[in-house]
Amino acid sequence: MTAPPLFPRVAVIGLGLIGSSLARVLRADPTLAGELVAADRSAAVCARVLELGLADRAETDPACAVAGADLVILAVPIGACADLAAAIGPHLKPGAILTDVGSVKQAVIRDVAPQVPDGVHFVPGHPIAGTEHSGPDAGFADLFRGRWCILTPPPGTDPAAVEKVVELWRRAGSMIEVMEPGHHDRVLAITSHLPHLIAYTIVGTATDLEEHLKSEVIRFSASGFRDFTRIAASDPVMWRDIFLNNREAVLEIIQRFTEDLTALQRAIRWGEAETLEHLFTRTRDIRRGIIDARQA
Amino acid sequence: MTAPPLFPRVAVIGLGLIGSSLARVLRADPTLAGELVAADRSAAVCARVLELGLADRAETDPACAVAGADLVILAVPIGACADLAAAIGPHLKPGAILTDVGSVKQAVIRDVAPQVPDGVHFVPGHPIAGTEHSGPDAGFADLFRGRWCILTPPPGTDPAAVEKVVELWRRAGSMIEVMEPGHHDRVLAITSHLPHLIAYTIVGTATDLEEHLKSEVIRFSASGFRDFTRIAASDPVMWRDIFLNNREAVLEIIQRFTEDLTALQRAIRWGEAETLEHLFTRTRDIRRGIIDARQA
Repeated sequence: MTAPPLFPRVAVIGLGLIGSSLARVLRADPTLAGELVAADRSAAVCARVLELGLADRAETDPACAVAGADLVILAVPIGACADLAAAIGPHLKPGAILTDVGSVKQAVIRDVAPQVPDGVHFVPGHPIAGTEHSGPDAGFADLFRGRWCILTPPPGTDPAAVEKVVELWRRAGSMIEVMEPGHHDRVLAITSHLPHLIAYTIVGTATDLEEHLKSEVIRFSASGFRDFTRIAASDPVMWRDIFLNNREAVLEIIQRFTEDLTALQRAIRWGEAETLEHLFTRTRDIRRGIIDARQA
Repeated sequence: MTAPPLFPRVAVIGLGLIGSSLARVLRADPTLAGELVAADRSAAVCARVLELGLADRAETDPACAVAGADLVILAVPIGACADLAAAIGPHLKPGAILTDVGSVKQAVIRDVAPQVPDGVHFVPGHPIAGTEHSGPDAGFADLFRGRWCILTPPPGTDPAAVEKVVELWRRAGSMIEVMEPGHHDRVLAITSHLPHLIAYTIVGTATDLEEHLKSEVIRFSASGFRDFTRIAASDPVMWRDIFLNNREAVLEIIQRFTEDLTALQRAIRWGEAETLEHLFTRTRDIRRGIIDARQA
């Protein structure tokens, strides 16, 4: 007789890039998950998920999907978490584990934790992985391999529940770190939210150019700009919610960035060659650090 | 009897990423180049170039290298072009073609053209290709394949000389466009110079963080930031020279960018969800344009 899977029934809510990638991870490992229920508010996505064989059944009503589930994964834009938590809260099974994949942790905890009934374990998480593509067809099981997943369980969370979520991400190939949610939000404001905001801005600036110049910009798009357009092709609703929900940390880092850009602008205007060369040299160290940390 | 190569003797001055990649292109095609002479002010680079078999001989004195050359390629940071042109000008062979690979065209023409003797054909060029790596070991023959090379010959340049430089880049696998130098500088300010400046700035902002936060930023570096650190690892002297020599176009586009960033910052501060989503949606169009133009 084989042992039961770690999670006999799993509900994944939101089958976009992250949710559908996780579904693929869960499907690939029968010792990890038994029955897999998908929920997505889009009936078209539900149909596609079944076509792709990513779940045993698919529901447009998340309350139906979570009933009886041992693990519930919220993989929706973070702005949708509050209403979603309110809708599923009363239907969560006692002893169930609830986790999420949102890119901001304080706001998700603020929105979700009050809806979690006693006896249900809420273990917030954030896999630092993604591509610029969206939807259930964009997912793939290796998305999380070699990438970090940060968990931010509130003080007093059941250690056994945390360990089970750790095991989920370990099976996905991730490295796991436990962190305080406010610290997570500050770190991610720098490494992810500001870069996306800048990329959206610069591509927006190019969008506003006179028509003939814009077509030349597209035609002769060089490596820097090309990378930015890729980043700026990320899911608009997901990113809108991130900026609105990590407002303080993002505004603080924009402020620092703007001061630094203004200093560089001034150095260019006044022809300060040494200032420019000095800055351009020291930024190489961070790159080396990232290569050494094998995240390049 | 075989026909002589298109350029019986070629001198490449500056054996960094671009110069050494071009040397590899020239070496691979005996119908393109005969003797290949390398010049680099660094004796160590000259020695390495010979070890790598990239040239028949290598000189630290560019005047020696250009003597008798049918094609002379300047592949040095653009700030070095004025002195270099003055040094080689008197030694250029009548009928020779002089070209360059600089990322700014008006400044290079301003610095080089006055040093070009009558009877020598100056055809300025700019291959839109590169990586974040530098030096003769970083080059590779396929660097230019499928990429644009923009030529900006002054009015009245000998069409036969232009056609020979076009053929050089065609053999490198590039697509060729002829453009007015001022227009080139404006387009590149947007597609290449501003993105690099932004990447240098954001990585610099991260460099200034408190030590413990900085180490976390490196450790949990997500895709946006990782891409920026790669761009910001580009050659510091080359980029210093680009910003100093395309000052007006770069300052103009920084100004537009800053206005747009300020508008986004304000939308985040005031929670203007629709403004954010609208911008994040329309930037996808430019990405689509780039994919359609097969430059992604």
